[in-house]
Order: sequence, then structure tokens, then C-alpha cells
Amino acid sequence: MKLAIQPLYVFSLACLLLTSACNAETEWRALSPENTVLMTLPQGKVVIELAPQFSPSHVQQFSKLVKEGHYDGNKFYRVIDGFVAQGGPEDGSAKDKAVPILKIEGEWTTDKKWSFTKVQDNDLFAEQTGFKDGFAIAHNPSEKAAWLTHCPGTIAMARGNEADSASSHFYIPNGQALRYLDRIMTIFGRVVFGMEHVQAIRRTSVIEGQPAVDSRDFTPIVSMQMMSDVPKEQQILIEVENTETTAFTERLVKRRKRDNPFFYKKPLPVLDVCQVPLKTRLVK
Amino acid sequence: MKLAIQPLYVFSLACLLLTSACNAETEWRALSPENTVLMTLPQGKVVIELAPQFSPSHVQQFSKLVKEGHYDGNKFYRVIDGFVAQGGPEDGSAKDKAVPILKIEGEWTTDKKWSFTKVQDNDLFAEQTGFKDGFAIAHNPSEKAAWLTHCPGTIAMARGNEADSASSHFYIPNGQALRYLDRIMTIFGRVVFGMEHVQAIRRTSVIEGQPAVDSRDFTPIVSMQMMSDVPKEQQILIEVENTETTAFTERLVKRRKRDNPFFYKKPLPVLDVCQVPLKTRLVK
Repeated sequence: MKLAIQPLYVFSLACLLLTSACNAETEWRALSPENTVLMTLPQGKVVIELAPQFSPSHVQQFSKLVKEGHYDGNKFYRVIDGFVAQGGPEDGSAKDKAVPILKIEGEWTTDKKWSFTKVQDNDLFAEQTGFKDGFAIAHNPSEKAAWLTHCPGTIAMARGNEADSASSHFYIPNGQALRYLDRIMTIFGRVVFGMEHVQAIRRTSVIEGQPAVDSRDFTPIVSMQMMSDVPKEQQILIEVENTETTAFTERLVKRRKRDNPFFYKKPLPVLDVCQVPLKTRLVK
Repeated sequence: MKLAIQPLYVFSLACLLLTSACNAETEWRALSPENTVLMTLPQGKVVIELAPQFSPSHVQQFSKLVKEGHYDGNKFYRVIDGFVAQGGPEDGSAKDKAVPILKIEGEWTTDKKWSFTKVQDNDLFAEQTGFKDGFAIAHNPSEKAAWLTHCPGTIAMARGNEADSASSHFYIPNGQALRYLDRIMTIFGRVVFGMEHVQAIRRTSVIEGQPAVDSRDFTPIVSMQMMSDVPKEQQILIEVENTETTAFTERLVKRRKRDNPFFYKKPLPVLDVCQVPLKTRLVK
């Protein structure tokens, strides 16, 4: 994106020079219940926004499996601190084997018309980072490639050694971003509510000297439902900050400036794309 | 550190070219019970290694407060998802006001003799990153400055707007690293065991539309003790990987290479210093 010719940029520059110019109101985007998943864990409810615009086949298969009750009673069987919580059906079971294999959707090709809200150049793992439709992404203009990035709370499909070997097992990073998995895994959604419950999923991997965790104690998925299939009175309806707006661009500028007396010495004007919290609100 | 003249580098280069050369055994460093804190939460036990070599005054004051029982019954009153779990005595209480104010220890000066185990150049927030004594650090040779970095699980002292205004309130990042707080806060330790319990601390900050959390429901600190004051049979004794060894340097080289068939396409040879898990084991 050539920021220099975008109206947003003119606004941002004004905002950069004059804090009082930064006052656009947050615009909200309602998540469609057809595109949202409710995962119920023993410790609480988790809401996941799906990303069909980026990973259509994965979202289609995941949604179908959710509707079929595939994940109900599944366990988080591979949970490693600072890495991921991974769940799915019993490995090698009939239920597991019945699921079709997916082709990887780890990145997409960009063209001249393609745009996003840039966070910054000079990222460690990409030429640019930013947001599109509320998702943290990375972009290499030199390759005309963009991809969703592994921030805490993204949901991605696990796979074997082959690129095209994912089926239904999924994982959610529970600590520091796993950016080195970008482009070689398919991210297909993100947790928008209840991340604390994902982080509380029982670790299955222990350190040397600790007793192994009995698989009966693994955290189960009580149920996984498309939000549109949840009875109206139990639905959790979420709105998220629209990342394609002046207000959001302003927020990025403000965040980079750290124009607050708490920052008695200003940090470098750097934004880690995985450390830009997006505003979320509960409609009901 | 000029890696080119270090024996470790020669070894690493051999290891880089020839995987079979990478086979040094992990060397372990036992944490001293006098330098380790046991924080008991309702959901489990957390062990913190202190860093007196980097932040002597903060460690001295924190240890003294721990011994006096200052933190017993305190609450985590500011817990924000993807940010921090912050705890301490009731704000403005006599107990709170009685604690002396500390001078910030956010960074230190390096000289020619100073060395560390480098992870890499070209970090977003520093000229170099690496490890020293098991702690993730950053280093700007041009400024002769180094500092502990805000990775998930580091423990740091909260403060007001003034640099020298910390006393006893502390925080632990619970999600993506907060590198923008580096150098302007004092990190004085890190969680080496039980991070899942820190991540499970009840969020006190809710989103728009959610009911506020009653302060009676905030997660309490059941007790905080120096490990040396814990009865022997209840002590949790931890050993951590020694980061000043050939074996650790080899691990960094291996991790950067991603020499595993799972990586059918290799990621960039980049290591985020906060995404280098350190080995830990339980002695008893």
C-alpha cells in the first residue's frame, strides 16, 4: 500500500503532529453468527471468528465438522506452555480418519488493487505487517504474497510433515507469537472472546521430573457450535473494531507515539503487529 | 560480543554446516532457594527466579517484603488479557505507603569485558538480543547499554509516571511480549514454573457490555515465600538450562535452522528472543 497517496495517511500525519486531530470514533463491525464459533470449555466460553475470506476451504471444512458435532468431547491432547493448545479427535480413530485432507491455505497472492491497513515496515519476519478485516497479517510486496500471522489466539489447522495434510486437528498459540510457523500452516480464525480460558487449558506436556498428565485429565471441549446454531438467548454476540477505518489508523499512530506521561522516556516508534490489542465489545 | 573471535562461534559454525557436530549435552544450573520465590495461587504453585545480578535493589526490597509476608493475601487487581497480571497491596493503604520508593534499574552499562550469548542482530527494539544467566536480554553496543526484556513470564515492578516511583506492586506479562516497556521499567525476575497458573489469573478488566468483576472475585495471592523459607518437603527445586554453554548455543543454531521435515519450506533464519523456550527440570 502506498500510504503517501491515501487520504488516511494525510489524516494520520495531522494526527502525528497534533494530537487533538486524532478523534475519529471507533467504528464497529458485528461478527456474523454464521461466521462465529462458540467453543465451550469447562472453565468458560470462547468465541472464535472464522476467516473464510483468507482460508475458504479450511473454514468450510471446520464449520461442517462443528455442525456435525465432530469436536464435542474432543480433548486438548497437546498443550505446551508458551507454544500451543492443540485439540482434535482421538488420533487414528475412525472419526479422525473419516475427515478429508485439506490443501494448505497458508498465504495468498496480492495484486495492485489489494490493500490493507499497514502497521509497519521492517518486521523481523516480513517486509510489512498490518491488519485486514481485523486479522493481523504480513505482506511481502516483493513476492506479491500476504498471509495471516501466528499471534496469540489465532486458530490454525495442525498437519503432518506434508503441506497438504491437515484435516480437523487444530491449535491455538497460548504464549508468545509463533511467527516462524507463518506461511507453512493454515490460520483460519482467531479468538475474539475468552482467551483467558484458552490460556488456562491444562498443559499435557510436563518438564523432566514432573509426573506425566493422565489423558483422562486433559481439558475436554464440552461442545463446539456455530453461533448461529446456539439458541438465541445463549448466543454471545460480539462486535470488533473495524480495522479499515480512520479511527483505527489513528489508534495505530497514537500507540506508536506513546504520548502519555507514563512514557517518561519514549520507546522506539515500533509496533509489534501481535501486540496491537483490538477493541471488542459484547452486544449481548 | 564479537562472535567472530569466540570459541563458541567456531563450534556453532561447524554445527551450522554439519548437524552431526551439534551434540553437546545440556548443562544445568540449579536455582538457589535463597534466590527463588514460591508464589501460591488458588489454581497452583508458581516459582519465580530473581535477578539480583541485574536489579539488585529491586530484588533486595522484593525479597524483604516477601519475607515479611507483605504479599500474603494481596490480590491481582489489574489483569488485562494479552497484557499483564498486576498484583500488590490495597492502593493507598498504610501497608502500601509504608514501602520505600525504589530507583529504577531498567538497564545497565556494558564494557569491553561484558559478554552474553547472542541470539541475533536486527531485533525490532534493539541492536542485539540474547541471553545472560537464563534471562532474555537486549543490547545496544552503540550505547553500551543492555537490559532485561519483557517476555511473557518476566516479573517487573509497576510504577507511577516517574521513573523512580516503584515500590511493591508488580506485574507479569501474560500474553505477547511487551517490549515497548523495556528500559523504562525494572524487570527483576522471571517465572520458571507454573506459568499456566499466571495465565489463568482472573481478568479484572472487562470489555464493553460485560459486567464488571467484583473485587472480591479477584485472584488472591495465597502466600508468597522465599523458597529457602519453605519447609524442605514442600520446596520446589528447579534446574534451568545454562545459557552460557556450547550446548545452548548449539540449540540456538538448531532452532534457527529448523532442520526438521515438518518445515517443508524453511522459515527465515530469525529467532524472536521471547520465543526461545529454555529447558527447565524439577529436581524435587
